[in-house]
Parts: sequence; C-alpha cells; structure tokens
Amino acid sequence: MPNVGSFDVSLKRSNDIRADIAVNPGNYRMLTGDRPTGRLHLGHYFGSIMNRVAMQNAGVPTMILIADYQVITDRDTTANIQDNVYNMVMDYIAAGIDPDKTPIYIHSAVPACNQLMLPFLSLVSEAELQRNPTVKAEMEASGHELTGLLLTYPVHQACDILFCKANIVPVGKDQLPHIELTRQIARRFNKRYAKVFPEPDGILSDAIEIPGLDGRKMSKSYGNSIMLSATAEETAKLIKKSQTDSDRNITFDPENRPGVSALLTTAALCTGRKEVEIAEEIGMGGGGALKKYVTESVNEFLAPHRERRAELAKDMDYIKDVLHEGNKKANEIAEATLNEVREAMGMVY
Amino acid sequence: MPNVGSFDVSLKRSNDIRADIAVNPGNYRMLTGDRPTGRLHLGHYFGSIMNRVAMQNAGVPTMILIADYQVITDRDTTANIQDNVYNMVMDYIAAGIDPDKTPIYIHSAVPACNQLMLPFLSLVSEAELQRNPTVKAEMEASGHELTGLLLTYPVHQACDILFCKANIVPVGKDQLPHIELTRQIARRFNKRYAKVFPEPDGILSDAIEIPGLDGRKMSKSYGNSIMLSATAEETAKLIKKSQTDSDRNITFDPENRPGVSALLTTAALCTGRKEVEIAEEIGMGGGGALKKYVTESVNEFLAPHRERRAELAKDMDYIKDVLHEGNKKANEIAEATLNEVREAMGMVY
Repeated sequence: MPNVGSFDVSLKRSNDIRADIAVNPGNYRMLTGDRPTGRLHLGHYFGSIMNRVAMQNAGVPTMILIADYQVITDRDTTANIQDNVYNMVMDYIAAGIDPDKTPIYIHSAVPACNQLMLPFLSLVSEAELQRNPTVKAEMEASGHELTGLLLTYPVHQACDILFCKANIVPVGKDQLPHIELTRQIARRFNKRYAKVFPEPDGILSDAIEIPGLDGRKMSKSYGNSIMLSATAEETAKLIKKSQTDSDRNITFDPENRPGVSALLTTAALCTGRKEVEIAEEIGMGGGGALKKYVTESVNEFLAPHRERRAELAKDMDYIKDVLHEGNKKANEIAEATLNEVREAMGMVY
Repeated sequence: MPNVGSFDVSLKRSNDIRADIAVNPGNYRMLTGDRPTGRLHLGHYFGSIMNRVAMQNAGVPTMILIADYQVITDRDTTANIQDNVYNMVMDYIAAGIDPDKTPIYIHSAVPACNQLMLPFLSLVSEAELQRNPTVKAEMEASGHELTGLLLTYPVHQACDILFCKANIVPVGKDQLPHIELTRQIARRFNKRYAKVFPEPDGILSDAIEIPGLDGRKMSKSYGNSIMLSATAEETAKLIKKSQTDSDRNITFDPENRPGVSALLTTAALCTGRKEVEIAEEIGMGGGGALKKYVTESVNEFLAPHRERRAELAKDMDYIKDVLHEGNKKANEIAEATLNEVREAMGMVY
C-alpha cells in the first residue's frame, strides 16, 4: 500500500468535508456499521452512533451495515450472532436511527455486494494485502492466526463502501489505510474499465473517546463496558465494582488516576458537564459519592434509550421487518451497481 | 497446505471412482469448466470436452462453469470476453453437451456462489494460501504480479465446486492441491458449523494430451493450436505452415522429431489410428504428404462439429437462452446452498 499521506492531510480533508456537509448534505452518502460480536455499549454510543444520528438528521443519506461476516475474520465461531444482531438493531433505533431514512442491513444478506470481492481482488496485489498495517495489528490483537478473510478484509470493506457508492466513511485514524485501499480500488477500476465508483473519504471522528470503567479502552472483553442494553441495576452494580483508588479527594487526572478519571469522563459525557467541575463538586466525597453520581448520570442519560429499547423488544417482528426492508434496499442498490460493473467489464452475455 | 498425499494415492482413488461411475453415475455430481480467455481448440476437445460429453451421456449430473472472473486473475483486461463466452457455448453444444441435461453458466452471474468466498476465506489461513504451489507456478507462467484474486483462486474454486455440492472434478495433476484445499474447506466448515458439504474428489484425466503443431503444449499463445471454430481452409493453412524437418522419411519420434510427431499424434487422435501406423503408411512421402494427411484427418474429424457450430451461430438468441437458463439453474442451486450455509452459521435474522 503506498503512503497514505500524512495524518494532517487526511484530517484537513476530513474537516473540509464536515464543513461542506453542513451546507450540502445531499452531496454525500455515508456508509457505516458495526461487527455484531456483542452488545453495543456507551463507547459505541458516544464514539459513533450519536454521530450517525446527527448525520442522518442533517440530511446525509446513510446506510448502516451489520457486518456479520467480519465476526469470523478472527474467531472460529458465530455463537450468539442472531441475538447480537437483533440487539444492535434495537439499539440503533432506540438511539435515533430512523430505518425509513437509514437502511440497516446485514452483510450476509447482500450477495451482489459480496460478489464485488472477485473483481476487486484482481485490482490489488498480494504485496499490498500483506503490507496493510492495520490488518497485522488486528491479527496480533486477536491472538488468532491470520485468516484469508482477515487478510482480504480491506477488500471487503471496499465492497461495502463502493457497492452503494458511499463517498464518506466515518473512521478512526487506524482505518485510514483501509480507506486508501478503497480509493485505489475505485481509481483502478475506473481507469481499467469505466468510471463507476467515487473515491470515498474517511471522516475522522472528533468524538471524545469514552474510556472503560478501568480507564482502558471500553471493550466487552475487558468487562469495563456499560452496555446500552443493561438495566439500571446492572449498571449500578458494574459501576460499584469499578476500581477507584485510596485518595478520598476526587480529582481529574487520567494518567495517574485512570479509574477515578474514567468515571468522571463517563459522567461528563452523560451530563454535558466538564470532568473538573464534577470532580470539584464531589471533592472529599470520595469514591462512593463519585460512583453514586456516575450511576445517576448514566442511568438518567440512558433512561429514555432503555425505555424505547424495551418498547422495541416487545415487537420482534418489527425489528425483523426493519432488517428485511434494509436488506431489500441494499440488494437493490447492490444489484444495480453489480450490473454497472458487469457492463463496464464487458461481462454481459 | 498439508501434504496432498502421493500422486499414486490420488490416481488409485480416481480410478476407483471411474469404475464406480460406470455402475452408479447418479451418485456423482461433476463440476467442470473453462476460462474464457480465447477460443477452444483441439487440445480442449481431446483433453476435456470429449470426456465431459461421455460423463453426461453416462448419466453423471454435470455443471459447466464458464469462469469469466478467472480471466482477470493474471491479466488486466477483459477484452473480447463476450465473444469468447458465446463461442465457448457454441463449441460445447456442437461437441455434444446437451444444455437441457448439463447447465452451462457464467461465474459472474451467480452472486450467491461468489458470496461463499467470505465464509470460506475464514476457514483457510494466509499461510495456506501462500503455500499453494500451483498458484505460484501460475503466477510465474503469467509474468503478472500476484493479484489478490490469483492468491485466493483456490478458494473461489472451492466455492465453484461446493456451491453445487459437486463430488467429482476432472483435474490435471497440478490441480490436486486445489482439490485438497476444497476438501479441507468442506471438512472445516462441516466440523465448525454443520454438515453441509461433500468432500470432492479429483478425477485425473486419462486422455492423451494432444501437442501443439510445434510439439509444445497446445496453447493459443504459441499459435500452435487448431481451433474448433477455424474453417477447413484456416486449418489447412495452419498445418501447412507448421514446422517439420529435413528427414523425408516420416517416423514417430516425439523427442527428436517434435514437429513431425505432433502432426502424427494429431492425425492419430482424429482418425483413431496409431501414430506408427500412419508414419509407416506415409513413409518416404515426406512432410508434404504428412501434412496433407493430417489436414484431411482433422478437417474430416471436425466437419460435423463445424457444421453444428455454423447452425448454432445462426441463432445467437438460442445461445443466450442456453446461458440464461444455465445461470438460472446455477442461481437456484447457489441460493439453496447459501441458505443452508446461513442456517448452519446461525446467520438467519
């Protein structure tokens, strides 16, 4: 993979697009989504879902992909996948995604999108696949041997983005190499056959990353995550168990006091207040008072989400309908694009 | 890729299956096909097509794949692909393939088959893909850099074989590693999720390989091939131009007289006679008499094929219908299999 350009260039481009989106939302199409490896948590909410809802409401046509095949890039099981998918849909809708505006669909339900793998794999070299730094990092993080699916994962991502001709994709910094490969695939296809695809841009997140309750990244596997689907009681219990420290005076100091500071950031995000302000208010109240405040903040913040979620859970047929409608829409788009691809390649018989 | 077992073991297994096919043809399903990189020639006819027709007529359910995406594993263009595909269909039918019994279909027309790439790629490691000796050899032969599509080619081949649950695949010796990977993918899928796929066997060809007119392998790129679609005049011209040697006495000696011997083998295959017998008959007649005999033998052999071909070429709508019907049948099979795969993986929402 060639140099992806400096991060600063990507950031400037991303900021320019953000500014333009505010004026011309209809010029964009956004592709975003999640792997259904578990339940969504507050980290997902503040890190991406909130932004998706804002983009949708600003008028940016958006598609949300539940990337079920990505579950098996680095694991040998699809256990609980159906449950994870249904819960994901409930969380999206409860968080404000309107499925009438924003199709929610499943990777494995869109064969015409997945077929793009074949022409796209012909446009990248084995050396380029090997050179992707993020794939290597993800493999190491997973502790799983490098599967063919993880090796070619940036190519599926290109299929997912390009099948609907998305031109913006919200990404973290570490995903910029993937976006660059998608751009190259689009460019090479357009040059070799005919202009079919846009060259999408990554939109870098400006969201504050919410830490897990132990100060590490919020992740299901660390057990430090507040799930959107948890009850108020489960949340209280989880926060109660979280580790603070022996200093009774509450201060915001992420480096030296990760536990206390993570709790403060959690409360800050849920209340819209500043960490320092909350810390001063609690002062010598200690960990107990802090946890009480955090629990109330989170539960108050999540109360309307949980209420909508509970309503949705009563009507699983509706959740399934949302997916079926999303899949239908995604298939229509994928088949139209695949037909353009066949036409461009002369594969019409 | 683990050791594929000795060639002798594969050969014995292949021979056992051949014997059983004669008794129980209905227990088998055969997948076979070609890359539409050019026109079919006598090498294809004697090397594979003749055998396919025999299997079809013996009652083995057979599917013929025109592997259009494989054209771009090692080249950057799809030029003439439509023409190549239509001509391939004409040659198949003229040679005796009955499309009512044996669907002829196109790789790019069967998304549900191609989607199998994703679950199947999760079942192989990058190391296994890298280790495939045939992929390396094919890359070197092509002079093209190793594309992601060629690297993962044994996995598409697994999709092509397994989507229709084929249990026999006619192969050359060099393709045994591909079949072994297909068997592994089937085995791993069945073990990890649920029993969906058979473990197919390679049927090694017992056909005499017809050499090109210069004694090398018959290949379009060497210009030494007698195309099934050539006219009698074109064939005569090509044979006339072929290189023999200065020894007027015609003898069969492939090692020392490749040109003369290739002509003898060509005539032998087309007439059902022995090379030595033909050589003795021509004796001191020299290259001119040999070429005359070969031209007559080939043209006589191909006359009925060419006549049927010419008839077919008058009705391109029929040729397209054959493909459309084949694609329809292949899609029905692929969608049924993909649904079983989704079910096995719990990806039903």
